[in-house]
Amino acid sequence: MKTSRTEAFSDGVLAIIITIMILEIKVPLGNTLKDLVPILPKFMTYLLSFIYVAIYWNNHHHLWQAVGNVNGKILWANLHLLFWLSLFPFTTGWMGENHFSTIPVALYGFILLMASIAWYILARIIIIEEGENSKIGRAYKKDTKTKVSMLLYATGVVMSFVQPIIGIIIYIIVAALWFIPDRRIENSLKNQ
Amino acid sequence: MKTSRTEAFSDGVLAIIITIMILEIKVPLGNTLKDLVPILPKFMTYLLSFIYVAIYWNNHHHLWQAVGNVNGKILWANLHLLFWLSLFPFTTGWMGENHFSTIPVALYGFILLMASIAWYILARIIIIEEGENSKIGRAYKKDTKTKVSMLLYATGVVMSFVQPIIGIIIYIIVAALWFIPDRRIENSLKNQ
Amino acid sequence: MKTSRTEAFSDGVLAIIITIMILEIKVPLGNTLKDLVPILPKFMTYLLSFIYVAIYWNNHHHLWQAVGNVNGKILWANLHLLFWLSLFPFTTGWMGENHFSTIPVALYGFILLMASIAWYILARIIIIEEGENSKIGRAYKKDTKTKVSMLLYATGVVMSFVQPIIGIIIYIIVAALWFIPDRRIENSLKNQ
Amino acid sequence: MKTSRTEAFSDGVLAIIITIMILEIKVPLGNTLKDLVPILPKFMTYLLSFIYVAIYWNNHHHLWQAVGNVNGKILWANLHLLFWLSLFPFTTGWMGENHFSTIPVALYGFILLMASIAWYILARIIIIEEGENSKIGRAYKKDTKTKVSMLLYATGVVMSFVQPIIGIIIYIIVAALWFIPDRRIENSLKNQ
Repeated sequence: MKTSRTEAFSDGVLAIIITIMILEIKVPLGNTLKDLVPILPKFMTYLLSFIYVAIYWNNHHHLWQAVGNVNGKILWANLHLLFWLSLFPFTTGWMGENHFSTIPVALYGFILLMASIAWYILARIIIIEEGENSKIGRAYKKDTKTKVSMLLYATGVVMSFVQPIIGIIIYIIVAALWFIPDRRIENSLKNQ
Repeated sequence: MKTSRTEAFSDGVLAIIITIMILEIKVPLGNTLKDLVPILPKFMTYLLSFIYVAIYWNNHHHLWQAVGNVNGKILWANLHLLFWLSLFPFTTGWMGENHFSTIPVALYGFILLMASIAWYILARIIIIEEGENSKIGRAYKKDTKTKVSMLLYATGVVMSFVQPIIGIIIYIIVAALWFIPDRRIENSLKNQ
Repeated sequence: MKTSRTEAFSDGVLAIIITIMILEIKVPLGNTLKDLVPILPKFMTYLLSFIYVAIYWNNHHHLWQAVGNVNGKILWANLHLLFWLSLFPFTTGWMGENHFSTIPVALYGFILLMASIAWYILARIIIIEEGENSKIGRAYKKDTKTKVSMLLYATGVVMSFVQPIIGIIIYIIVAALWFIPDRRIENSLKNQ
Repeated sequence: MKTSRTEAFSDGVLAIIITIMILEIKVPLGNTLKDLVPILPKFMTYLLSFIYVAIYWNNHHHLWQAVGNVNGKILWANLHLLFWLSLFPFTTGWMGENHFSTIPVALYGFILLMASIAWYILARIIIIEEGENSKIGRAYKKDTKTKVSMLLYATGVVMSFVQPIIGIIIYIIVAALWFIPDRRIENSLKNQ
């Protein structure tokens, strides 16, 4: 089986997630600048989640370039990733609605953590199928970046119980780490 | 006519169904863990429906691999399937909202039943067009799995009037049966 | 310019329209069969609109098979059609909400009329670009079906002021007329 | 990396933006023509935003025809554009809800301005990657149209503090300027 339909379906789901998050920001009743102030935390949260979904799309795009054929295992690992990403609109809405209070910030980070675990599983399963000497196998040999991210997300969840803003800052740091698309696959492709 | 646009349209509809179901889970007003408790049944229902739509997408993906050309009949049989699947967000929302009470559980199962009937009709029409000796014809010769599922859905609907939780358990069992993507077509393709 | 991106974009818009209409049917508060009764008119309206969008997708699919290249004029004629179709969720929701009362039924028909005019314009512009002797030119030479539909929609709008149910029946008749995908292009392709 | 997935993802996001804006127009409670009157400003705003998203899709379609390969920079410049476009449903809903009062009209124009800046950046980055003598480089050499649009958007924002309707008129004028798809790339392609 070719990868085209899996990529198209994933693109569809990611495009919808990134777009419906804006529906969580309800239009304010008033028409002054002041009426936008209570929306600011929601907007900041939306921006962070937009960047996260964009990062996942970017890396998904890169990852699947290295996949030759899909099978049932890969399909389900991909759907598992999409499941956790599909919860972003909920956690984004809740965190923005509650102005970055403890539990919503911790839950936001927990879903980020689960998505990164799902990403790790997907990459591992693809490597097993493609072989350790495949392009993807060499590119993701250690995958330190994903492991560090998982550790940081877990730290962010814990720290949000001390002070939510620290959790947020950690999530922003991870996003910054991933902002630059993964050049490992590009390099691996070039070196071949 | 080629199958590409039908697959793309179906991917679009399935991607939207799987994603907008999360919109039925409204962000709670409070910001404590307690505020998430009333959402738990909705979340469990969402998870079950996500798995069901994922199963349909997976099998749809497999089924259409075996289709050479589409005609009006196949297009409408496919749209008929999408119609029943499009009702999932409604029955998912209602069942989650009402904490698995009788009628919502029965309706949830009824829509599952109708979707499986629509799936059966689609497969039959494709077999008639492709011929009984085609890849798809041999792969779905008996199609016991779909028939057993239909029987189980009907049983689930009836049992939900006795005790809704039995209905739910039956729906979970059917989902588990289908969790593994259909290898019949893969095998049929290999054996050729 | 090739037609692939225009088809993909149209598929996306049509897939979203057909799916978000279900969001207009709010989950009822109660959990009995009685609670579903007030939803019945909404459900019937949803069914009718689903069939209409499905018909447009089907015919759009057929129409674009005959298009070689797109230019600015064709792109805008296509977007004009998508605009009127994008209003379906609104008129569907309003007619269902108001149990088929006069003005909502008339507006529903008016938007159907505008969509069919947009369809007619799109087909004409494509014929002008492709030439009257092209596949599409010969297939849609007279296009009596579209003209009859436009007349019936207009009649439905007027009749809904006498008795809304007559308007509804006329809209159902037109849907029935189009239920069978347009074989003219298929035939024209075969005869070549 | 090929451009197909970036185009598909952008098509998905644009298709969703153009379609969910209709969800901001809530179905009125009454069933008379009078009940539609308060919706008129929302409908006019929807029409304007529909045309704007359609223009962006059209030009995006044209622009990417000229792109050979994508890299990380281009991907992020494209996502940056999609971000500002994703705010259209919010500003459209707010402006329509408040019958074109000052701040909503100014914010609507500000988002239009940011989207046009994002468009300019995207085109520049593509030109740098493709080379100034490439098709796209020659087609967008001066790009006076985008620069004039940016100036007009800024003027519209300022003028909406004097009189909102002037801001609206300026936004309509810019839309009219872009209504005709960009023939520069088409010409550049032909001349080669």
